[in-house]
Amino acid sequence: MASEHRTTKPTHRITAITPLLADLRGMDRATLAQDLVAGTLTAMLLIPQALAYALLAGLPPEVGLYASIVPPLVYALFGTSRTLAVGPVAIAAVMVSAALAPYAGDPDRYLTGALVLSALVGLWMLALGLLRLGWLTAFISHPVLSGFTTGAAIFIIGTQLPAMCGIPVARDAELLPLLTALFRDLPALNPAAVAFSSVTLTGLLLARGPLLRLLAHAGLSPATTAIVARTAPLALIILALFSAAALDAHERWDIAVVGVVPTGLPHLRTDILALPGWPSLLPSAALIALVAYVESISIAKALAFRRREKIDPNQELRALGATNLAAAGFGAMPVAGGFARSMVNFEAGARTQFAAIFTALWVGLAAATFAGLLHDLPKAVLATLIVVAVWQLIDVSSLKSTWRYDRGDGLAQAATLIGVLALGIELGLSIGVGLALLLFLYRTSRPHIAVVGRIAGTEHFRNIHRHVVETWPQLLLVRIDENLYFANTPRVESALQHLVVDRDELRAVVLILSGVAYIDASAREMLEALEASLAEAGIALHLAEVKGPVLDQLHGTALAQRLDGERIHISTQRAVGALTA
Amino acid sequence: MASEHRTTKPTHRITAITPLLADLRGMDRATLAQDLVAGTLTAMLLIPQALAYALLAGLPPEVGLYASIVPPLVYALFGTSRTLAVGPVAIAAVMVSAALAPYAGDPDRYLTGALVLSALVGLWMLALGLLRLGWLTAFISHPVLSGFTTGAAIFIIGTQLPAMCGIPVARDAELLPLLTALFRDLPALNPAAVAFSSVTLTGLLLARGPLLRLLAHAGLSPATTAIVARTAPLALIILALFSAAALDAHERWDIAVVGVVPTGLPHLRTDILALPGWPSLLPSAALIALVAYVESISIAKALAFRRREKIDPNQELRALGATNLAAAGFGAMPVAGGFARSMVNFEAGARTQFAAIFTALWVGLAAATFAGLLHDLPKAVLATLIVVAVWQLIDVSSLKSTWRYDRGDGLAQAATLIGVLALGIELGLSIGVGLALLLFLYRTSRPHIAVVGRIAGTEHFRNIHRHVVETWPQLLLVRIDENLYFANTPRVESALQHLVVDRDELRAVVLILSGVAYIDASAREMLEALEASLAEAGIALHLAEVKGPVLDQLHGTALAQRLDGERIHISTQRAVGALTA
Repeated sequence: MASEHRTTKPTHRITAITPLLADLRGMDRATLAQDLVAGTLTAMLLIPQALAYALLAGLPPEVGLYASIVPPLVYALFGTSRTLAVGPVAIAAVMVSAALAPYAGDPDRYLTGALVLSALVGLWMLALGLLRLGWLTAFISHPVLSGFTTGAAIFIIGTQLPAMCGIPVARDAELLPLLTALFRDLPALNPAAVAFSSVTLTGLLLARGPLLRLLAHAGLSPATTAIVARTAPLALIILALFSAAALDAHERWDIAVVGVVPTGLPHLRTDILALPGWPSLLPSAALIALVAYVESISIAKALAFRRREKIDPNQELRALGATNLAAAGFGAMPVAGGFARSMVNFEAGARTQFAAIFTALWVGLAAATFAGLLHDLPKAVLATLIVVAVWQLIDVSSLKSTWRYDRGDGLAQAATLIGVLALGIELGLSIGVGLALLLFLYRTSRPHIAVVGRIAGTEHFRNIHRHVVETWPQLLLVRIDENLYFANTPRVESALQHLVVDRDELRAVVLILSGVAYIDASAREMLEALEASLAEAGIALHLAEVKGPVLDQLHGTALAQRLDGERIHISTQRAVGALTA
Repeated sequence: MASEHRTTKPTHRITAITPLLADLRGMDRATLAQDLVAGTLTAMLLIPQALAYALLAGLPPEVGLYASIVPPLVYALFGTSRTLAVGPVAIAAVMVSAALAPYAGDPDRYLTGALVLSALVGLWMLALGLLRLGWLTAFISHPVLSGFTTGAAIFIIGTQLPAMCGIPVARDAELLPLLTALFRDLPALNPAAVAFSSVTLTGLLLARGPLLRLLAHAGLSPATTAIVARTAPLALIILALFSAAALDAHERWDIAVVGVVPTGLPHLRTDILALPGWPSLLPSAALIALVAYVESISIAKALAFRRREKIDPNQELRALGATNLAAAGFGAMPVAGGFARSMVNFEAGARTQFAAIFTALWVGLAAATFAGLLHDLPKAVLATLIVVAVWQLIDVSSLKSTWRYDRGDGLAQAATLIGVLALGIELGLSIGVGLALLLFLYRTSRPHIAVVGRIAGTEHFRNIHRHVVETWPQLLLVRIDENLYFANTPRVESALQHLVVDRDELRAVVLILSGVAYIDASAREMLEALEASLAEAGIALHLAEVKGPVLDQLHGTALAQRLDGERIHISTQRAVGALTA
C-alpha cells in the first residue's frame, strides 16, 4: 500500500514533479494536432464559463478570464491528469461569494479578498500535499458532497434570479433573505432583461435537445454533436453582444451590462498581502480547498482510468496548490478542475496537458484583444448561462436512494442539503462533514459481538441466537467482529462484563479474535484489567484465533505474560477441547 | 448489543432512575452497619480532600465542603454504582482553576464562575445521558487520559509549590510563568510555612510506609491498615490546626492560613445565572464533564465488576449530571467520583449508597459545627496534602510502554503530556483528544489490501507477496480486509485502479470481501463507478465471499443488478473455477 501512489520511479524525480516533461518525450505531430483541436474546443466553453463564474463570485469578468490563463499553464506543468481542464468553477465561485459577503460593500476590498482566498486555498492544498495529508480529504463522504452540490446549485440559481429578471438585489450569504428581497422587488422587474434571459434560455435548451438530434440526423457522431452543443454558450454570448449593442439595450432599457473590461493580460500582483484580517478567511479557504480538490480529483481519476492512466493524489494537491497560488499572483479567483470542460477536452481527444496550454493561449488572446468588446453584454445572459450550467448539478433522487441504502448516509446528505439552503454554503457544508464524521464514529464505537456455540458434530462455532448450538455452563465463547480501538473499548468492556455477571457456574471466557486485526493501547489495557478482575472472580480469560500481527503486537506485554501461551489457542475448537476436558 | 446496558427490566422504570430504591428492599441491619462504618471512614478522607481541592481550585474551603454534602446525596439517589464516592476531585479542581483564570482578579466573579461551571458540567452530562450519547466519551483514549493525568498532576504540584514555600505567587493558567515567578521570588520564602509543609510531608510519608508495616506487624489485616493510613490526612490537619493556633503562627510568622470559613450548611442559590459571558465557559465545562465522567465511570466499572454488579453508562451520565446541577445550586464546585475515596469506601465494606449518605451526614455535621475552627489552618499543610495525593497520579513509565506498544498511541500520550505542561490544562487535553482522533481516522483511512493467489493443490488463497501461489494473467484476485467506508474509499479506489492499469491481459477482477461487514453509500458508488469503468476497458468485476448482511444491503442497488448473481461467488475457489474454465 505504501508505494502505489507513485507514478514514477525515484530515479525520475523531475518528471514526478512536472509530469508534462514525461509527455514531451512521446510527443509527435499527430498528438499535438489532437491537443490543439481539443484545446480550442475547450476554450470555446471556457470563455463563457470564465465570464459567468466571475459574475457568480461577485467579481469583475476579467478575474474569470485571468483564472483561465496562467493557472491552467501552471497546472499543465505540475498536474498528473492529462485531461483535467482547470479554471473557474461554479461551486468554488459561490463559495467565494459566501466567504466575501462581509466585504460586499467595498469592491476593492472584495477583489483583494478574492485573491487572498486564491492564495490561502493554494497554501492549504500545498500544505496538505507536502505533508502527504491528502487522505484527510476522504472525510467528505459522497452523500455529503452530493447533498452539498445539490444545495449549492439551488442556492446559485436563487442568486441568479435577480440578474435574470433585471432586479437589483443586494448579495447575501443566505438564500432566504435574498429570495424575500427578490419577491418584494418583483414589481421592479426589467422586461428587457427578462427578454435577454428568455432568448438565452431557449437557445441553450435548443442546443441541448433538438440541435443534438438534428446534428445526429445529419450523420455526426454523438461525441461530435456533444462538442458542438458545448459551443452554444459562446455563440449565444456573441449573439447577445451584437444585438445588445445594435439595440443600445443598456441606454434604452437600463439593463445591467458587464461594463468596462480591461483589455490585456494579467500582470503579477504582490499587493494582495495587504488585506487586513486575512486570517479570518482561513476557514473559508479550507472549505473551498476541500471541495475544489475533491471535485478535481474525482474528475481526474475517472478520466484517467478510462485511458488506464495514473493519478497521484498528493501530487494533485501540490499541483492544484501551485495553480491557486498562481491564480492569486495573477489577479484570479480560486480555480479547480471543471467537469463539463474536462469532458469536452477528453472527448475532443486531448492527449496531454498541451491541450490546456492551447486553451490558455486562446483565452489569453481573447483577453488581450477582444475583452473590451464585452462592455455591452447583458448580465442577464451570463446569469442564464450559470443557471443552466448548475441545473444539471441538482440531484434530488440521490437523496432518496441514499436514504434507502443507508439511514446514516441519508441523514448526512439531507442535513447538508437543508443546511446549505437554510444556513448558507459554509455552515451547511461544515454541518454535513461534521455529522458524517460523528455517524462514522458512532458506527465504529459499536462493534458486533456474538456469543457463540458449537454446531453439533462440527468444528463450526456460530451465534447462539441464530443457530442451534452446543454450549457449556462453565464456558463463555465470545466472538468480537471488529478491530479493538479506544473508540469501542468501553462498549466491549461493558458488554463482556454484562455477559459474565449473571453466570455463577462460569469458569472461563474465551475471546475469539478471528475478526480482530488490531488491538490498540486502550483496548490492551482494558483486556489486562478484564483478565485481572475475571481472575479475582475465579474466571480464566482465554484467547482464540488470534491473528499473527496481533500476536506480534501483544508479545512482551503484561497480558501475553499472564496468558503465557497456555491460554492462547490456535482455534476455538482447541480452546473448547482444553477447557471441557 | 441493544439491551445489555439496562440494569432492570422495563417494568421497573422507577428503580432504573433511582437504583437506590432497589437496594432498599434488600436492606438489613448488618448491611446498614457496614455502610455506616464505610461511610464514616470515607468522611475522614473526604474532609481533608474537600478543603485541599477547594484551595487547588482557587476557591474558599467551604466550597469543597459543600461539594461533599448535597451532591453525594443526589448521586446516592440516581447513581448505578453502589460504592462510588462522589465529591471534589483534584483533576477537576485544577481544570476549574484553569477555566476561571480570566476571573482571577475578582473573587466574587471567580466563585460565581465556579458554580456556573458546576451547572454547565451538569447540563453537558445530563444532555449526553438523555440523548444516549455516552459513547462519545469513548473518544478520549487511555493513552491520552494517562498523558493528561500525569501532566495535570505535575502541573498541580507546580501550582502548590508556592503555597508550600509560603511565597505569594499569582495563579496562572500555564506552568512555566508560574515556576519562573516562584524562582524569582525564592528569597521571599517563609521558613514557618516550609516547616509546616515539611512536618506534614513527613507525617504523610510515614503513614504510607513505616506506619503500614507497624500496623501489619501488630496483626491488622492489609485492608484495615490501608484504611487507617487513609485517616492520616485528617489527623495531620487536626495536629496542624492545634499547633498553628497554639503557636499563633499566622500572626507571628505571617504564614497564609485558611481564614474565615462560615459555619453552617449550604443553602440553595439561584443567583449563579447572573454571570455575564457564561457561554464562554461552555467549552471548559465540556472538557471538565468529559474528564469527570470518564474518571468516574472507570472507577465505578472496576469496583462494580469486583462484586459482579452492573453499571449503566448512560444512567451514570444522567446521575452525575444531576449531581453537578445540585453542586451548582448548593454553592459547590464540580464533582466526580474520586479514586482513593471510592477505594476506601469499597474496602471498608460499603454495600450501598447509604454509605455515601452517612459520609455526607458526617461532612454536613462538620460544616455545621466545626468549620469556623479551621481559621488557623496553614495553607501550606493543605498544599502538601494535595502534592502527596496527586503524586501517585504521575505515571511516566506508561509513556515508554505505550510508545513501545504502539507509536500512534505513544505520540498522542506524549503530545497530551507535553501540551498540558507547555500550553496549559485545557489546550493540552484538546490537542491530545484531537490528535488521537486524527490518528484513528488515519488508520481507518488505509485498509489492508492484499493481492492473493491460490496455494497449489488447495482451496486456500493467500497474499502473493508472502506465499508461493498460483496466479492467472487474465485474473486479479484482491482481498480487502476492512469495512468499506467513505474514509477509505478513495484509497481503495486508487489502489484498485493502480493494480489494474499495467495489466494488458487482464479480463476479470475478483474482490474478495470476506473481511467486509459493511459497505457505505460512498463505497457503493465507488464500486459502481469502478465496475462501469472496468467494463469499458473490457474487464469484468466479480465479488466473492460477500457476507450475508452486505448482500442484503446491496440488494436492489445498481451494482447488484449489474453483477446479476452470476458475478457474485460464494467462494474465491468458485470464482476462480468459473473464470478459468
